[in-house]
Amino acid sequence: MDEFAYRDGALHCEGVPLTSVAEQFGTPTYVYSASTLIDHYRRFAKAFDAINPLVCFSAKALSNVHLLRLLGREGAGVDAVSGGELHRAMLAGIDPERTVLAGVGKSETELREAVRRDIRCINVESEAEVELLSRIARQEGRRPRLAIRVNPDVAPDERTPARTTTGTRGGKFGVDIDRAATLFNRAAADDALRVEGFHVHLGSPIFDPQVYATAIDRLLALVAMLEQAGHRITTLNLGGGFPAEYLDHTAPSWDDFAEVIIARMADFTARGGQVIFEPGRTIAANAGVLISTVRYLKQAGERQLVVLDAGMTHLARAALYDSYHFIWPLQPPAEATPGSRDVSGLAGLTEYDVVGPICESSDYLARARSLPELKAGAHLAIFTAGAYGMTMTSNYNSQQRPAEVLVHGDQVRLIRRRETYDDLVALELLDEVDGQ
Amino acid sequence: MDEFAYRDGALHCEGVPLTSVAEQFGTPTYVYSASTLIDHYRRFAKAFDAINPLVCFSAKALSNVHLLRLLGREGAGVDAVSGGELHRAMLAGIDPERTVLAGVGKSETELREAVRRDIRCINVESEAEVELLSRIARQEGRRPRLAIRVNPDVAPDERTPARTTTGTRGGKFGVDIDRAATLFNRAAADDALRVEGFHVHLGSPIFDPQVYATAIDRLLALVAMLEQAGHRITTLNLGGGFPAEYLDHTAPSWDDFAEVIIARMADFTARGGQVIFEPGRTIAANAGVLISTVRYLKQAGERQLVVLDAGMTHLARAALYDSYHFIWPLQPPAEATPGSRDVSGLAGLTEYDVVGPICESSDYLARARSLPELKAGAHLAIFTAGAYGMTMTSNYNSQQRPAEVLVHGDQVRLIRRRETYDDLVALELLDEVDGQ
Repeated sequence: MDEFAYRDGALHCEGVPLTSVAEQFGTPTYVYSASTLIDHYRRFAKAFDAINPLVCFSAKALSNVHLLRLLGREGAGVDAVSGGELHRAMLAGIDPERTVLAGVGKSETELREAVRRDIRCINVESEAEVELLSRIARQEGRRPRLAIRVNPDVAPDERTPARTTTGTRGGKFGVDIDRAATLFNRAAADDALRVEGFHVHLGSPIFDPQVYATAIDRLLALVAMLEQAGHRITTLNLGGGFPAEYLDHTAPSWDDFAEVIIARMADFTARGGQVIFEPGRTIAANAGVLISTVRYLKQAGERQLVVLDAGMTHLARAALYDSYHFIWPLQPPAEATPGSRDVSGLAGLTEYDVVGPICESSDYLARARSLPELKAGAHLAIFTAGAYGMTMTSNYNSQQRPAEVLVHGDQVRLIRRRETYDDLVALELLDEVDGQ
Repeated sequence: MDEFAYRDGALHCEGVPLTSVAEQFGTPTYVYSASTLIDHYRRFAKAFDAINPLVCFSAKALSNVHLLRLLGREGAGVDAVSGGELHRAMLAGIDPERTVLAGVGKSETELREAVRRDIRCINVESEAEVELLSRIARQEGRRPRLAIRVNPDVAPDERTPARTTTGTRGGKFGVDIDRAATLFNRAAADDALRVEGFHVHLGSPIFDPQVYATAIDRLLALVAMLEQAGHRITTLNLGGGFPAEYLDHTAPSWDDFAEVIIARMADFTARGGQVIFEPGRTIAANAGVLISTVRYLKQAGERQLVVLDAGMTHLARAALYDSYHFIWPLQPPAEATPGSRDVSGLAGLTEYDVVGPICESSDYLARARSLPELKAGAHLAIFTAGAYGMTMTSNYNSQQRPAEVLVHGDQVRLIRRRETYDDLVALELLDEVDGQ
């Protein structure tokens, strides 16, 4: 359920026709629905209400300060993976008590910033990181809270891409589960540290709730073992990885995941334990679209190509992961107004390859896609672009990164301006060029 | 041949030990050798001297204004693929007479800028673009020079990645060769336009000179046909795609390519035709390294991992293309000082997976790589990073993009400063956040 819908012949975000956003701000532009973002956050939290989790939104999926602030007002925390994301969380007014920091390669500076802010939990990924954190804690005279990120060696389902599978043995994330107790003991014996529990993250997106079940069972066995040895485990961070609907009805609901997870975690929370989740995609993906303009139609061999002003530098997922994004005109013909993302019943469609302006062969947003007949100047929406869209943009080909616009009801607000040519070179110290 | 060499136990760029650059500017940092860049440009141009080509350096490979300026002083032009790159070329003082513009999705604004500057050649990629350019030319009262980008339907050799193969039928680039004459005639009949020839680009890197030979033969057949019909063809742009040595002696020399190309083009140039080349990688790749620091060593299953401060956001090629980059410490043990990139004979090596700090499983810079034993804090160089390195960086995970440093002899100069946390959010209009 989201607030992007066709009404009166045009795609609207909440009360605003997106053609008016395209005209006012140009394209390519990311457009977010505040109501959808808030609604998804609330419904996700409600699904897990029985175990009262701390929901830390994963800033790597969507990191605009205005949007983190919007979520923070709803009670969300932030899952940061860098000092830059910690900085964003702070600017968004996120309480350090609702902020966690993860990452396999945190710098000493990043750890020090987290220690000084006394954030809720630092998810530590190796023995060496525990040593470094301990040294920083002593220098700073603080006792940081940490969890050990465990690699539970759980294979996700076959629909999770290899590039985003994070919890299998030999991978770079976390500590092997058979070494986790030893590392926990090491941290627990250190009076500079407060080790509170464990963190897992299994990959993204994960479509099968049983993947979480398997990982949790392994985690709870580890917890039981440590508790029998006299430790108290107060925090279990189950990470993110919950899917979003890129098509229709292909992913389980949050209730499906909650059913499996709550059944296993209720005892832990009843004893005072805190569960943390780090959802990103599942909340944000369908809260945003990327709007784009057709620059050219062309024929290449037997293919019909539509060339957009948006490509892999503006939305990397299709080129990087072969990801599917539903794409449709902002103002389709009446007979081709989609009621869902299954458009097979619509009339008058043509098969196009949808490409961007980047000088690279992988710069395809879609191949062999049925669309209404298109003309240069037509606007399109690339759907489900709210997660891993803007955060993965680049300036390759000296492309300017898109603007970001937030819609709430009838209100439209620019929350990040489009880059200019001058922005592209601003850090290149051009006074020196001119002066030399 | 490049100016990165181990001397006195440390990797030097020209006269400067890179450890001093790491200490002064931090890491990750791109370091370029001015002498190498200049030498490569000169030797490339010299190899093709017999046909006196216009060599337009491909800015998408390496676009720092200072480096374009350095090449421009040597006589290089610029091959731009966007308005942003045209802007860079202008800031670098590149003569419009040595500037060309390519790209399958040029905006009206970009074409207008090119027309107003009267650049040497606009490489047009479709019938629709010819129409648009004609309209702009009339509005501006100019007669832009253009070439028709032809898709010669030549398959590169099997070592060219599919993602960077650009000249096969059905792909997004150029006009099918069997429609090129028609489009040339259309443009030639338009008194607002000056159509001067054709452009091809076959992919990158291309290891077999015969791929160029095949494409040129098809192009010359097209030229002969049009000349028989009374047209004069004065420009043939053969693009880039020339390889760089990522290992040792795996690529043909520039002379190998020149031999094949000059034999075919000498007649064209003898009749007054201008050949244009657009080399990027072949000149820039080995003129730059990315220096990085080891943050952690860790074990994962049976793998030894070294976690760097540089990852896929700082150098995308390994994650995106599975590209090979030679990686070695700045200060290796004496017995592990490499004389070449074949290190199989060196003593005391350990097998590592080399990963970055990004929360993504594809964030590997190398797998199962033999390296001297490493410790946290050690500095490494990731070689052959001068092309498609800095230009493909992103802020994913809110990572700050690297600094760029230029070395010339004993001189070290910062040519792009490292991003700060504030830079990451500068465009997000935070006055409004504070004021709300």
